[in-house]
Amino acid sequence: MKELRGKAVADSITEYAAKNAEMLKEKGIMPKLAVIRVGARPDDIAYERGIIKRFGSAGVEHEVFELSEDCTQDDLNSCFDRVNSDSSIHGILMFRPLPKHLSDEHMKRTIDPNKDIDGMGYVNQAALYSGDKNAFAPCTAKAVMEILDYYDIPTTGKRVTVVGRSLVIGRPIALLLISADATVTVCHRKTADLVSELKKADIIVAAAGEPKMITSDMIGDGQIIIDVGMNLDEEGKLCGDVDYENAAPKADVITPVPGGVGAVTTSVLLRSTIEGALRSANG
Amino acid sequence: MKELRGKAVADSITEYAAKNAEMLKEKGIMPKLAVIRVGARPDDIAYERGIIKRFGSAGVEHEVFELSEDCTQDDLNSCFDRVNSDSSIHGILMFRPLPKHLSDEHMKRTIDPNKDIDGMGYVNQAALYSGDKNAFAPCTAKAVMEILDYYDIPTTGKRVTVVGRSLVIGRPIALLLISADATVTVCHRKTADLVSELKKADIIVAAAGEPKMITSDMIGDGQIIIDVGMNLDEEGKLCGDVDYENAAPKADVITPVPGGVGAVTTSVLLRSTIEGALRSANG
Repeated sequence: MKELRGKAVADSITEYAAKNAEMLKEKGIMPKLAVIRVGARPDDIAYERGIIKRFGSAGVEHEVFELSEDCTQDDLNSCFDRVNSDSSIHGILMFRPLPKHLSDEHMKRTIDPNKDIDGMGYVNQAALYSGDKNAFAPCTAKAVMEILDYYDIPTTGKRVTVVGRSLVIGRPIALLLISADATVTVCHRKTADLVSELKKADIIVAAAGEPKMITSDMIGDGQIIIDVGMNLDEEGKLCGDVDYENAAPKADVITPVPGGVGAVTTSVLLRSTIEGALRSANG
Repeated sequence: MKELRGKAVADSITEYAAKNAEMLKEKGIMPKLAVIRVGARPDDIAYERGIIKRFGSAGVEHEVFELSEDCTQDDLNSCFDRVNSDSSIHGILMFRPLPKHLSDEHMKRTIDPNKDIDGMGYVNQAALYSGDKNAFAPCTAKAVMEILDYYDIPTTGKRVTVVGRSLVIGRPIALLLISADATVTVCHRKTADLVSELKKADIIVAAAGEPKMITSDMIGDGQIIIDVGMNLDEEGKLCGDVDYENAAPKADVITPVPGGVGAVTTSVLLRSTIEGALRSANG
C-alpha cells in the first residue's frame, strides 16, 4: 500500500501557479483573489487561513470582504457586485452555506464566468455539465483530478465508484470523471448494494461525508482509494469517509485524511485565480 | 416480455396538458410555443410536423420562426430576442445543431428560464445538474422518466446503466435518475467491459446512437430496457440502439423503436409549454 499525499501535488501546482503569476506581474497584471465571507464560522475561518498562507507563499494577492452575520441581502449583493465588476480582481470565492436569511441566487446568476474560480455560478455549472474542458469546477472536485494526474493514475476505461451525490463534490467529480473517459457509477444513501459497487471499482472516490463508513470488508483488493471526506470522529479528530487504519492495508494506493485531498484544494484555488487573471489578460 | 409503448404515455400526458391549457384559457392566457428553425433539415421538419400535430390535438398554439440557412448571427439573435421577450410566448424550442457559422451562445446565456422548455440554456442546465426538481430537462430525457413513471417502474435503489454520455440524452438522463434515487452507471465508447455493466443492471437506458449495438448476448435475463436510439439500419429503416428482434425476448419489458421513447417526446414538449405558461401566470 502506498499513501498518496496531497502535499507534493499542492507544491507542484503552487510552483506552476507562482511562475505564471510572475509572468503576469511582468505584464503589469497583479493576480488577486476576493474572498466574500458572511459572519465568522470556524470552518470558513480555517479555510481562509489556508488560503492566506497558500497565496502568500506564491506571492499572489487576496482580499477578504467580510460582512456581518446579520447583513441584508442588499448588503451582500452590493458587496458582490463591487467585487464582480472590479477589474483588479480575478477570482471570487464566496463562502457557503450563507446564513439562512440570505440567498446566493444573485451571485449564481451574475458572476463573471472568468472570475468564478470555484464553479459556483450557472454558466460554469452548465459548462461542467456539458463537459466543457474550460469550465471552472469546484476546487475540491478539481483537487481529486489533480491527485490522479500527479500520481499518473489513468482514468480512461476505468471503473470508478463515486460515493455521494452532493453538489460540492459527488456530482462535479462524477462529471469530471465521465469527461475523463472513466466508467462512472454514482452511489448514495439509497444505493441497494453499496458493497458490490465498491468491490467492482478500479477507483473509489469516497465523498459521502460519513466518518469511517467504508471499512475493509466493503472493498476489494488492490484498489485506488481517494477519500474526500472531512469529518470528525468520536474523539473529535479529523477523519475521512474511509476507515483508514482498517481499510488502507487492502488498497493499492490511498489518500490519507488529513494530508490528502484537503491539502490540495487551496493550491487549485490559487491556480484557478491565476487562470482567471490569464483569461482577463487575454480577453 | 412486455412492450412498453409510448403512445399510452403520450396520450395521458397530452390529456393532462390539454386540461391545464383549458384552465389557462379561461383565465385569458393562451399557451403558445415558439419554434425557431434555421434552414430546413429533414430531421427538424419531421420533428416540427410531430409538434404541430401534437399541439393541434391539444388545442395549444405554436408559431414557427424560420430563418434561411445563410442568415447571420445578428438575424438569429434578433429573432431570438423578439421571441424571448414576447409575453404571448411561453415556450421556446430552437432546433440544433445550427449551421456551422452560427452559435447558440447568446440563446444559452439569455433565454428566459421559464420559457426554456427543452433545457437548452445555462440556468436550466445548472438547475438540472444541481438536482433542482423544477429544472426543465431536455424533452427526450424527460420522456424516459415519464415512461418509467407511467408504467410504475420504480427507480429508487435500482441499478441503472446508461449507455451514452451526450448532452442531449446521456448526461441529462443520468442526472435525472441520480435525483430519482437510482444507482447510475454511465458507460460510453471508452468503457472497458460494457457487457458486465449491462448484465448487472436492473434498468438499461440505451442512448449511444449506434444502430442495434446491444445484442441478446450482452444483456441479462428479465431486465427493463429503455431504448432511446433513433437510427437507420442497413435497409434505411428506423431502429434503436438495441437489436430488438434478437434481444427483446430476454427482457422483462422493453420500449420499441419506433413507437417507444420517440412517441413521448412531443407530449413532454407540450406539457412543458403549459408549465411555462403556468409559471408566467403565477410569476
